[in-house]
Order: sequence, then structure tokens, then C-alpha cells
Amino acid sequence: MNLNISETKIAFGGEQRKYTHYSEALQCDMTFSIYLPSTNEQQKIPLVWWLSGLTCTDDNFSQKSGFQRLADHHQVAVIIPDTSPRGENVADDAAYDLGQGAGFYVDATEKPWSEHYKMYTYITEELAEIATSLVPNFSGKESIMGHSMGGHGALVIGLKNAKRFKAISAFSPILNPIQTPWGKKAFSTYLGEDQESWKSWDASELIKKTNAPPIMISQGTKDGFYPEQLEESTFLKNAKEYNQSVEYIKHDGYDHSYFFISTFLDDHFAFHVKHLK
Amino acid sequence: MNLNISETKIAFGGEQRKYTHYSEALQCDMTFSIYLPSTNEQQKIPLVWWLSGLTCTDDNFSQKSGFQRLADHHQVAVIIPDTSPRGENVADDAAYDLGQGAGFYVDATEKPWSEHYKMYTYITEELAEIATSLVPNFSGKESIMGHSMGGHGALVIGLKNAKRFKAISAFSPILNPIQTPWGKKAFSTYLGEDQESWKSWDASELIKKTNAPPIMISQGTKDGFYPEQLEESTFLKNAKEYNQSVEYIKHDGYDHSYFFISTFLDDHFAFHVKHLK
Repeated sequence: MNLNISETKIAFGGEQRKYTHYSEALQCDMTFSIYLPSTNEQQKIPLVWWLSGLTCTDDNFSQKSGFQRLADHHQVAVIIPDTSPRGENVADDAAYDLGQGAGFYVDATEKPWSEHYKMYTYITEELAEIATSLVPNFSGKESIMGHSMGGHGALVIGLKNAKRFKAISAFSPILNPIQTPWGKKAFSTYLGEDQESWKSWDASELIKKTNAPPIMISQGTKDGFYPEQLEESTFLKNAKEYNQSVEYIKHDGYDHSYFFISTFLDDHFAFHVKHLK
Repeated sequence: MNLNISETKIAFGGEQRKYTHYSEALQCDMTFSIYLPSTNEQQKIPLVWWLSGLTCTDDNFSQKSGFQRLADHHQVAVIIPDTSPRGENVADDAAYDLGQGAGFYVDATEKPWSEHYKMYTYITEELAEIATSLVPNFSGKESIMGHSMGGHGALVIGLKNAKRFKAISAFSPILNPIQTPWGKKAFSTYLGEDQESWKSWDASELIKKTNAPPIMISQGTKDGFYPEQLEESTFLKNAKEYNQSVEYIKHDGYDHSYFFISTFLDDHFAFHVKHLK
């Protein structure tokens, strides 16, 4: 495993680390962050995944959410991947919602994107192997959360691997990308024009196809991308029809920012920890 | 009062606001942030000042510390000034530790700096009038905290106005700028070569000249600027000799970053709130 540690910061007693490595799945150098709580060497430590939104790197959640306080308190490790492959040789687009910083957590099938944009495989296989090896006294249990595009990623990855992830939660997620503008643009680019193929990357479709882990979703009412990009009705209708455990909470006055995430992160961590025990 | 609100974000129930205004003291347009906690309209709200370090704006503390959780919990307002005058017509320097982003919270006397660099007057008079007018049900009580250059600023402003500020605290402060490299560079530039004039902006000197409010200081042992820029011995010796109330705490393994600040901000808020009651 070709892994270089580039930064270690103590935060709330634990260690906020940054690593770089060459990704075989993505065929480029990648950076990720991981938080390892202080440990008494007896307690088993679960792993929570955080997937970030458009334009983010592994730094946004690490620096702006204050999650380390909760992760150390609850004694969980948190892995924060980057949001796409990176580098001069990696396909890109001038728009903020396509290309580098906007991988949408799919495995692309269309050229030139298919050469590097395999974020689903990267996260579920390659980075998973690395991350679980870094957690001291790993409990073997994982859960996943994310924001916006990363909320979509958390739901898609969690639902496609429903036995592996004990809980899924999301802030302001893209719940029905095959029907909303960001998703349509990304999926037609990465996956091509066969819209049938898009369904395997859409939470509102996937919720019909598995026995889902418990799901919690927080959405701010003053979010500038809501409801256009973040429409929830199809997801909630399908979840209800298939008898899934979904808690969808609207928060008055909150927007799409990290101020919203940091305010309700306590609730999300408590939800995950309950199911990771 | 020529005041424009440019942003309002809900965070932890309160409002994180950003304002712009023309400053008479600084002779340029300025931006500041203020957090107003949710209020029950009965409790009186005190005002805590936060002064940031080199290269920062009003955004760093607002976005990276997670302070809003504590400010709403304790029902205090928090005002975050920028760290210097700003703009194309304002004197600047290519170095990160001089000019825009590095005002050192003094009133400059040397040209060209004296035209705009009056951060002490700006904060203690002009911005104070604005900030206190924005706090609903203001209790009339103020305290001050800061980081690095802003820790120096908090101590200097707090000690020069010892009756006004009920508590002072600092993370990794420049405690003796007349003897350390950042301070010598800034003071010789802003205040000229008469080193006697520097003493009125040095916490280790000011601590000898007043009945100081209670002071708490946190310093990480792995701080890359410690002890060179942040040397504490003279300050602590003088504080002891003049029987001042100073708690100086070293934290093993922590560095100069916001990870350090966010970890111990609970303790600092508790300290301030105790003295603001």
C-alpha cells in the first residue's frame, strides 16, 4: 500500500490526519483525511464515512464542521475522501458541477470520463481497504453520511451496500438526480444517454430495491438549491411504499452551508452511533 | 451609521451576520462578522470580541472554530473584526506579516501606515459603537479574546481598557512583541524606531500598569511559532510580580491551528461567561 502521511493535527484529543496515495481505481494521485479518536485501547472503533458536496475537497468537512468533537466523544473514526479524481491529466470541465470536484460518486462509462472517474469503486473498495486498516481496534462496523452531492453519494453507496453500512444520513442531499438538473447533467456526461443506466445511481430508485439501513435526512428550508436540485417527494413516496426506515427533517431558516451542517451534526452522529453499537 | 448587511446565516439557532461599512477611523471600507444568539428577549446579552491572527479576515473564526454552538448556549454575542484596513488604496506589503491582514491592532504613527492603520481606535471606538448597537438587549458587559496576533490584540486592548473588559483570553498569543521577531518587524514599521513608544502596545509591559481583568491563555506545545514568536516568560514574570490573575495553560501536542482553538474554545467561553455574569 503506497501511502504517505502529509499532515497530523491533534483535535479534541484525537488525530486529524491527511494522506496522499496513488489510486489504482482512479489512476491518479489522491488525498484523503481521516480522524482517529483518542482511544483507551479497549473500545472497538467503528468507521463513519463523510462524502462532501460539489467543489469540496477532503478539507471542507474537516475544517468547517467541528465534527472532531463528536467523533472523539463517541469514539468513532471518520474518513473523508476527496470528491473526484484530480490532476492535470484528469478530464475536467470549467463548470463547478462537472469534472474535478464533481465526481458524483459514480463509475463513469463514457469517454473521456471513464478513464479516471471511478469514485464508486475507489470508495467502496480501494479506499475502504486503506481506511479500515488505519483505524486502531476497528470494530468492523461502518456507516455513511454526506452533504448535497455527497448526500446523494452516501445514499447511493449505502443502499447499494445495504448489509455493510449500519446507517445512512445526509444533509441537503440530491435525492433524485435522474430528475433534477445537476444529476441529469452529470449522469448524461458520465454515463451517457441511456437513462435506464442512470437508475442504478439514483437514491429514489435504489430505495425500492433493497432492505435499506436506517436513514436520516436533514434539509434546510432556506436552502437556495431546494427544492429544484434536492426534491424529496419521489424518494419519500418510494421509501414509504417499500416500508423503509426514513426520517426526513426540515429545519426552518437554514441554508445549504456548513453553518447548517455543524448545527445538526450532533443529531446525525447520535443517529449513527446508535446503529453502530 | 453607514452600515450594510451582506449576509445572514442561521447557525445553532442564532444569526451569523456579515456587515460592510465605511470606517472613518481607517478611511476605507471594512467588513466584519457578528453572531447574535437566539434570544428569549428577557436575558441580557453580553458582547465577546474575537480578534484573529495574521492573514485572517472575519471569516476564519466564523467558519472554522465552531464558536456559534457555545455563543448560543451561553447567550453571548460575538463580534469578529477584520485584521487590518483593506483596499487598493491602503498601504500593503508582500510579506504575510506586514500590511493588509497584519494590522497588529495598533494605531500606526509612521507614514504611509498612519493614513489607514488605526485598528486600535477602530475597534475600541468606532466598531464598538456599531457592535453594541447591534446586540439585542445588550447587557453593557464586554470581554475580549483572540489568537496569535489577535491574542496580542486582545491582551493589549483588554489591558489598556481594564475597567471595560471583564475578562481577557488568548490562544497562542504574541505576549512580548517588543522582544520577538513578528512584533519587532511590525512595530518598527508602524511605530518607528523609538522603541520606548512600542511599550504601550506590549502585553508584557501593560500588565505592569493596571489592575488587569482575569486572564486565561492557552498555548500548544507543538506550535511551530512557539516559543520564538510567542515567548511567555517575561509576561508571566511581570504578571506574578504585579499580582495579576493569569492562568497560562500548556496543551501537549497541539499546534497553532484552528483545530487547537476549536478544541479548547469551550474552556475559554466558560471563563468569559463566568466574568460576564
